[in-house]
Amino acid sequence: MQLFDPRNKDGVAYTDGAYMPVGQASIPLLDRGFVRSDATYDVAHVWKGSFFRLDDHIERFFASMHALRMTLPHSHEEIAAILIECVRLSGLRDAYVQMTCTRGVPPPGSRDPRECCNRFYAFATPFVWIANETQRRQGLSMVLSSVTRIPPESLDPRIKNFHWLDLTMGIFEAYDRQATVALLHDGHGNVTEGAGFNVFVVKNGVLASPVRGVFEGMTRRTVSELCVLLNIPCEWRLVTVLEVMNADEIFLTSTAGGVMPVCVLDGRPVGTGKPGPITSLLMAEYWRRQEQGWLGTPVTNYPINATENGTWSS
Amino acid sequence: MQLFDPRNKDGVAYTDGAYMPVGQASIPLLDRGFVRSDATYDVAHVWKGSFFRLDDHIERFFASMHALRMTLPHSHEEIAAILIECVRLSGLRDAYVQMTCTRGVPPPGSRDPRECCNRFYAFATPFVWIANETQRRQGLSMVLSSVTRIPPESLDPRIKNFHWLDLTMGIFEAYDRQATVALLHDGHGNVTEGAGFNVFVVKNGVLASPVRGVFEGMTRRTVSELCVLLNIPCEWRLVTVLEVMNADEIFLTSTAGGVMPVCVLDGRPVGTGKPGPITSLLMAEYWRRQEQGWLGTPVTNYPINATENGTWSS
Repeated sequence: MQLFDPRNKDGVAYTDGAYMPVGQASIPLLDRGFVRSDATYDVAHVWKGSFFRLDDHIERFFASMHALRMTLPHSHEEIAAILIECVRLSGLRDAYVQMTCTRGVPPPGSRDPRECCNRFYAFATPFVWIANETQRRQGLSMVLSSVTRIPPESLDPRIKNFHWLDLTMGIFEAYDRQATVALLHDGHGNVTEGAGFNVFVVKNGVLASPVRGVFEGMTRRTVSELCVLLNIPCEWRLVTVLEVMNADEIFLTSTAGGVMPVCVLDGRPVGTGKPGPITSLLMAEYWRRQEQGWLGTPVTNYPINATENGTWSS
Repeated sequence: MQLFDPRNKDGVAYTDGAYMPVGQASIPLLDRGFVRSDATYDVAHVWKGSFFRLDDHIERFFASMHALRMTLPHSHEEIAAILIECVRLSGLRDAYVQMTCTRGVPPPGSRDPRECCNRFYAFATPFVWIANETQRRQGLSMVLSSVTRIPPESLDPRIKNFHWLDLTMGIFEAYDRQATVALLHDGHGNVTEGAGFNVFVVKNGVLASPVRGVFEGMTRRTVSELCVLLNIPCEWRLVTVLEVMNADEIFLTSTAGGVMPVCVLDGRPVGTGKPGPITSLLMAEYWRRQEQGWLGTPVTNYPINATENGTWSS
């Protein structure tokens, strides 16, 4: 146990073997992780002092690195320890925790990614919400974006990556149309995903979620497991744009916010215009089970003067 | 005039209003330019102490920023002055010069790109060659990659961007198949581009180069202007994979190396297996005219003890 450093309240990063306030953390300008977006990452979250599915996130992170032919000198257990230490030092009870592997800096004059030494970066910041409290209660407003999601033939979306310009242009489109989030299509009449979230539709009591051209999100996986536990039918298949337009309920899943209802689509109400019963049930179960310790890894030994909400008390 | 700082010989960067050795330059870990690849850039080059098409590069950089809804406090002229100063301080007579605009760091808790203050980064490093001297003389070995280039429906390739994982996986594929470079297709039987280069094919004395799904490279533009000057017919259209397989000559264009012959495709010789006459003519003209000052902006007032090849003399 040590004293909490108030500079850590906005988050703590780990780079090159050292922990530091996140605002001081940087990456080299010449790291291919920046100048070629040659990187993969994963994001876990901490809720009420406990990681959710930490091992699953790290396992997926290793799978993404393997697919991009990257390796790190850290074991699964070492990465877990680093992430836990970032959270602990930040004093945060609710946190957004990112682990990143970049290709690294090539030797001068080289364009060969094989000659780079892969690099590890991690940080914990206060929990990030795609939907604020009002939006979680009343539902988000979403648009069906005109942008086509980068297809799996170009980049396997199961490798978590920073190629977000299509998603980012979708965010701008949403704002232009007085909405908060945008759902991208696949160019063939099916929906895919949006900026940091998967989508589910509900029709006549049956859930459906896209299986192609999407990242296989952890909250999406959690919802699929909740569906089994709660005996809610859920189909994994292509989901058409038309199905989204005619859904009884729509919800999004993301580590940055859990299960989040969408109640306005392209300016028109979804179903009753209020969060539906299945969405509400899944939202409640998602948080209730986590708070009971489901799939949790507690962070222990917080600094002694870090308060419950992660702010500093002298 | 001042003394040359030997720490600058590997390159000089400009970030946050200051010049520094490129190895010391970094970007914040939380800049969306890194964690969302929310950035655009351009690359100019300096040859024998003179920038080539500097204004054209900066003009295109502004167009890319505009398309991504980014703005900087710098004028065209100020950016030119910064780039020239990076080169001057480096002492480099032959340089690779990158200008980058990132979305910036969002306020804590925000996911809204509109709330970021866009950031400018620049650097000059020693000239980078896609093809080394032997490869430029004997021709490169290229593969037709199995990867589909990110399509324009997802991301307009005319906005120069860091979404390179498709291109990077192509590089690995090339190495796996004992080649140096990979040409990506569009998923519909046409070729597009590779990692940092455009492609031209020559058949019966007529050039052709893809017009769709490609970055409109500056060297590609220069070749099109040389074709007019030299009265070489050049077609701008879709180019099929089959045409590439049956070409008399193939060459690549890039700021990182100019005009570069490809003499082996998928392990088989292209044409005679040696750089062809049209490729050789364009290579020669490209460098000859630059050395005569064509479209050039000289760098002046190099530090007094920087030698001709950019190494330090005490």
